[in-house]
Amino acid sequence: MNNNTFKEIADALEHAYTIGIYPHILMDGDALGSAAAICIALRKKGKDASVVIEDKIPDNLSFLDRNVCTSDQKRYEHADVSLCVDCGELSRFPERADTFLSGKKKICIDHHPTSEGIGDLNYIDGSAAATGELIYELLLAMDADIDTVIANSLFAAITTDTGNFQYSNTTRRSHEIVMKLYDHGLDSYDTSVMLYENESFAKIRLMGIIMSEAEVFAGGKAIIACVSNEMLRQAGAQMEDSEGIVGTMRSIKGIDIAVLVKEVKDNVIKVSMRAKEGNVSEIAVRFGGGGHVKAAGCTLNGDLAAVRKKMQKAVEESLCRE
Amino acid sequence: MNNNTFKEIADALEHAYTIGIYPHILMDGDALGSAAAICIALRKKGKDASVVIEDKIPDNLSFLDRNVCTSDQKRYEHADVSLCVDCGELSRFPERADTFLSGKKKICIDHHPTSEGIGDLNYIDGSAAATGELIYELLLAMDADIDTVIANSLFAAITTDTGNFQYSNTTRRSHEIVMKLYDHGLDSYDTSVMLYENESFAKIRLMGIIMSEAEVFAGGKAIIACVSNEMLRQAGAQMEDSEGIVGTMRSIKGIDIAVLVKEVKDNVIKVSMRAKEGNVSEIAVRFGGGGHVKAAGCTLNGDLAAVRKKMQKAVEESLCRE
Repeated sequence: MNNNTFKEIADALEHAYTIGIYPHILMDGDALGSAAAICIALRKKGKDASVVIEDKIPDNLSFLDRNVCTSDQKRYEHADVSLCVDCGELSRFPERADTFLSGKKKICIDHHPTSEGIGDLNYIDGSAAATGELIYELLLAMDADIDTVIANSLFAAITTDTGNFQYSNTTRRSHEIVMKLYDHGLDSYDTSVMLYENESFAKIRLMGIIMSEAEVFAGGKAIIACVSNEMLRQAGAQMEDSEGIVGTMRSIKGIDIAVLVKEVKDNVIKVSMRAKEGNVSEIAVRFGGGGHVKAAGCTLNGDLAAVRKKMQKAVEESLCRE
Repeated sequence: MNNNTFKEIADALEHAYTIGIYPHILMDGDALGSAAAICIALRKKGKDASVVIEDKIPDNLSFLDRNVCTSDQKRYEHADVSLCVDCGELSRFPERADTFLSGKKKICIDHHPTSEGIGDLNYIDGSAAATGELIYELLLAMDADIDTVIANSLFAAITTDTGNFQYSNTTRRSHEIVMKLYDHGLDSYDTSVMLYENESFAKIRLMGIIMSEAEVFAGGKAIIACVSNEMLRQAGAQMEDSEGIVGTMRSIKGIDIAVLVKEVKDNVIKVSMRAKEGNVSEIAVRFGGGGHVKAAGCTLNGDLAAVRKKMQKAVEESLCRE
């Protein structure tokens, strides 16, 4: 699949009036920050644009929704453009897939290398640390008026997806774009406080409960933990509160691979994996999932204990092969 | 006090042969990263330069010492240049002050606005997020050969002192310099792993155990938790592993005051407090302790449960008075 140019995508948006923007489910800072940034830029150009969502905005990201989000899909049925950001598979926005597909033109902008490029126009760049980086380039191609709010949204996208510029996906370009965002009024401190100093007690408590039962295996090279519905209940937390915990697990000395096994629904178990040196993408793919080399995931059927055991075995094998 | 130019400082270093470099005690990433970077650059120019230290290098910073550090002060007595970095007061390197002062020329490079400028040549810039930013400018003025090791050292300096580019001191310049360090072979991921991905499992597990029993009170404005010897045993941790946890407690949404009550010895209980808006110093003083408005502590006799109760009452009263 060949990418279109940002100019081609900018032209398509220029010729559209109604534009529905689709971040993925369980939205993160990059998905919502990117979606909000392009939405605001389009509205400034007089377009009828909104970020169409199907699930709850996490508390620490709610500041990114400056009246841009809507759950009213009907409004964007048969829109001139359906634009999915930070995702490139219909399964990443299952309840909105039909509305997305009803768009007269589909555009996909994503940085996941496994992205399927479901748009009529696509820009998939696995070398970008965040979709926010690609949206910045698109805004330039659109000759958009990047203001403080847009700058803050793009910073939120980039800083969260790069783990505050520490992950291996971080590049010269990530810093270059942030540097330029300061020229548009970026308030990186204010944005960081919103993102990080607003943890819910339930989230911190959940992290405590998860970490207190985490298990190190494979000779100290891997760590695994579970999130059950019972644990969520005990902490008064939601599943989204487990976001980020797998990163904390990976930060342990000597750990190469961290695995968090989440009971999403009865019999539906979601697995998130992070690696320092190893390749968790290939493990995820084996179980029908995908992602990046250092951050990947998959969804399995079964009970929590059984999936935990299965993943533990797969990680052990993967580490032994090295 | 007026600053000298980086060119003047570069010239002074150019004309020197023996150069002792002095980071502050209780060195952090900026102090050691900056010192190591300038030391390596000077050695590459054929100078006899070392980082003279008087205390232990923290575990997570030991990778910055590529044979640059020495405790042998005698070697740098009457050096051509004594250069202090990331500090500008003799009290910040008390055991080395005499050796520093014995240098034929003293130079001071620092970003603390309270710096006294104790050098014959000084460059003090309180607007720099890290001394590492100033060292980068100096290396340019020296026409130094910035290699991967130097780039990584400067990145370590900047990323630690900016709280990974989230603190309010972070500027456009911070990102601009990091961007340019990539051109010199910066490996930001590798450096970040060294700095941050070396937490002990015991520490993370201890955090889990502490946080899973933390209690929010005073209408959601305060949080309190304990560290008992039994909890340390359970986690396989030391009391020093509880460092930083009270900061995590404070980061919770709505929390103004966080209190961690630690069983240091039988009947000896240490209390650490952090505030967002409130004043924990006045609470600490009431119990014979002290500190800053936002970070204070005290030591009490009694058992853990009794001290916890007492502190909880004191915090409640303090918050009610506001």
